[in-house]
Amino acid sequence: MAQAGIKEKNRKDLTVFLLSEGTVVCGVFTQNLFRAAPVKICEENLNRNCAITALVINTGYANAGTGSEGLSNAIQTCISLGRMLCVPKEQILPFSTGVVLEHLPLNKLIDGLPIAVQNLNQNNWFDAAQAIMTTDTLPKIASKQVQLNGQAVNFTGISKGSGMICPNMATMLAFIATDAWISKELLQKLISEISNVSFNRITVEGDTSTNDSFIIAATGKSGIVVHSESDEHYLSVRQNLMEIAIDLAKKIVQDGEGATKFIEICIWNAKNSSDALKVAYSIANSALVKTAFYASELNLGRVLVAIGFSGIGNLNINNVAIHLNDSPIFIKGKQYQSFQEKKLKEIMKESNLTLHISLGMGNSHEKVYTCDMSHDYISINSKYRS
Amino acid sequence: MAQAGIKEKNRKDLTVFLLSEGTVVCGVFTQNLFRAAPVKICEENLNRNCAITALVINTGYANAGTGSEGLSNAIQTCISLGRMLCVPKEQILPFSTGVVLEHLPLNKLIDGLPIAVQNLNQNNWFDAAQAIMTTDTLPKIASKQVQLNGQAVNFTGISKGSGMICPNMATMLAFIATDAWISKELLQKLISEISNVSFNRITVEGDTSTNDSFIIAATGKSGIVVHSESDEHYLSVRQNLMEIAIDLAKKIVQDGEGATKFIEICIWNAKNSSDALKVAYSIANSALVKTAFYASELNLGRVLVAIGFSGIGNLNINNVAIHLNDSPIFIKGKQYQSFQEKKLKEIMKESNLTLHISLGMGNSHEKVYTCDMSHDYISINSKYRS
Repeated sequence: MAQAGIKEKNRKDLTVFLLSEGTVVCGVFTQNLFRAAPVKICEENLNRNCAITALVINTGYANAGTGSEGLSNAIQTCISLGRMLCVPKEQILPFSTGVVLEHLPLNKLIDGLPIAVQNLNQNNWFDAAQAIMTTDTLPKIASKQVQLNGQAVNFTGISKGSGMICPNMATMLAFIATDAWISKELLQKLISEISNVSFNRITVEGDTSTNDSFIIAATGKSGIVVHSESDEHYLSVRQNLMEIAIDLAKKIVQDGEGATKFIEICIWNAKNSSDALKVAYSIANSALVKTAFYASELNLGRVLVAIGFSGIGNLNINNVAIHLNDSPIFIKGKQYQSFQEKKLKEIMKESNLTLHISLGMGNSHEKVYTCDMSHDYISINSKYRS
Repeated sequence: MAQAGIKEKNRKDLTVFLLSEGTVVCGVFTQNLFRAAPVKICEENLNRNCAITALVINTGYANAGTGSEGLSNAIQTCISLGRMLCVPKEQILPFSTGVVLEHLPLNKLIDGLPIAVQNLNQNNWFDAAQAIMTTDTLPKIASKQVQLNGQAVNFTGISKGSGMICPNMATMLAFIATDAWISKELLQKLISEISNVSFNRITVEGDTSTNDSFIIAATGKSGIVVHSESDEHYLSVRQNLMEIAIDLAKKIVQDGEGATKFIEICIWNAKNSSDALKVAYSIANSALVKTAFYASELNLGRVLVAIGFSGIGNLNINNVAIHLNDSPIFIKGKQYQSFQEKKLKEIMKESNLTLHISLGMGNSHEKVYTCDMSHDYISINSKYRS
């Protein structure tokens, strides 16, 4: 950790993670066509299948939309850290978050590296969670220890993000480490499964950053080893990684720009996963649904309309059932008979709400996490420069 | 026109259009899966290919999500007006806009019909534009007269809508009449073409109502007749209908909920129309782009990010060019050299802005109209019930 003064003074803005020898590292990255320079370097280095020794993360500038100079700056960062750690640049993964279209102040970043390396400490997770914040109002950290074969195994992660994308000052980053060892082939499959129930299921306003990155590192220090899905500890390791990832993903939405409510949208009995996601995101990204939640009003009409324009085919409204938390509110094409406006108002005052929607078309299920849209969302995003 | 007291007293809320004999009528309707009862009846009656004698439009209640009772209420409305005009119910087209999930107060509506019929007057367009308003702040009307073969031909239309959808109090309706005569086959083709450059190219927040309807009626009273695309007056009639429709569509966006700026998004050199629309709507519906416009900031980064997650394939950023009005701001993958922050700030203060984006991938072009997203948008949509 270091205060390199990359964009602002007196702020932790540079973080180095040193990984012990033999650590297996996998990552998933943004689907945005305009991927930032560090994302391209990460993908290249991970594809080489050589060891990864360290991660380096800066805030302040995203190094996105910066062309060949941006790529060169990301590579220079890897070269400099690599020299200090006596490893080639290909063993370093770089991450950046902050303003797009402006160049990294490379000298400040490189000057900060010795202090970041000097401050390396395995108990620094909380400081690291702070050091990767941009518009976040809270550091995001999750950790648990479990016993496997009488052996303590740790799962710890940090994340950052507040708008799903706020290209001038934010993006989503998440890093999880475990001292279990997982084969690279299996970890690559796991990280994809895990991101599809966590970081790929959150939305603040539906936009996707140029820099989004999610990394899992498996050090093996605990002695617990997982080679394949038939291994004894596979399910336990998978479950614990998933819990940490979902926890970190939820924390991003809970800290969503201007958010006053955390909302889970659960779609049941969809024809397939794709349909379930279309309906879930149509509701979760509807500004009209989100502003109604902000007003502590469910507004069933807006929810139905969002289902109706989600782009799935041949839905029969008479088979649709909607529950808010445990209360049925729409059954067999009609508002539920004993639907009580007063009870609904009470539930809607809560800050954590779950909308369950059964489409009556099949057996698929998907869950998406989102937040409401408030006056503060507009303020944050229309005043960021002032 | 009548004040039927459907939802509020002392407000014009019921409109009847009487069409002269031989008038050709076509319509296009919402793609929302949950189409309102009157939309279903309109489609049925238009598909019968029999004459259409009158349109009846109520505000206050949308008659959407109202099941079989809703269908029955829409049919009863047609029966009642049909009796008064001595035509079968199939010759009436009903339209509703307002609150969803609640039933039409059928008696009040039917009681208002005699006065609405009594007040029929061909110069009532402005009153009709007022009578179909819900959350609209201004009536929307467009009209022009042209000379064809020395004969005056009129094109007049009205529209309503403020949120693209605001299911508790709004929807989009548009009615255009001309005294040219157009064959039904040709008019059906024309209305589809026309809606694809007007009402299908506007977005306030990306949601689509259950009640959206657009009708063109061609009376033939001018004596000008258009049977097919090879007819002498075809291009002129088409052009004038299109101009009226685009004008009415723009008026809806200009009156968008909380809007302070009117924005045209023009996509050039796309591979195909579908790609151009994906990019245009990705920008036009991005809450981050819209809040930046509200702040009179272009925020090039947010625009690039919205292009990047639009879902089109293989875009090369070095071929992308972006202009704001006439000023180049992003050329060959970089901010334009002589890009002046000060000049940009001046342009961004204007209330009508056009963003031109060339993708450098082909020859397709599409244009979409939208508005910014302000604090008032949140206020209107989170306080509608209070």
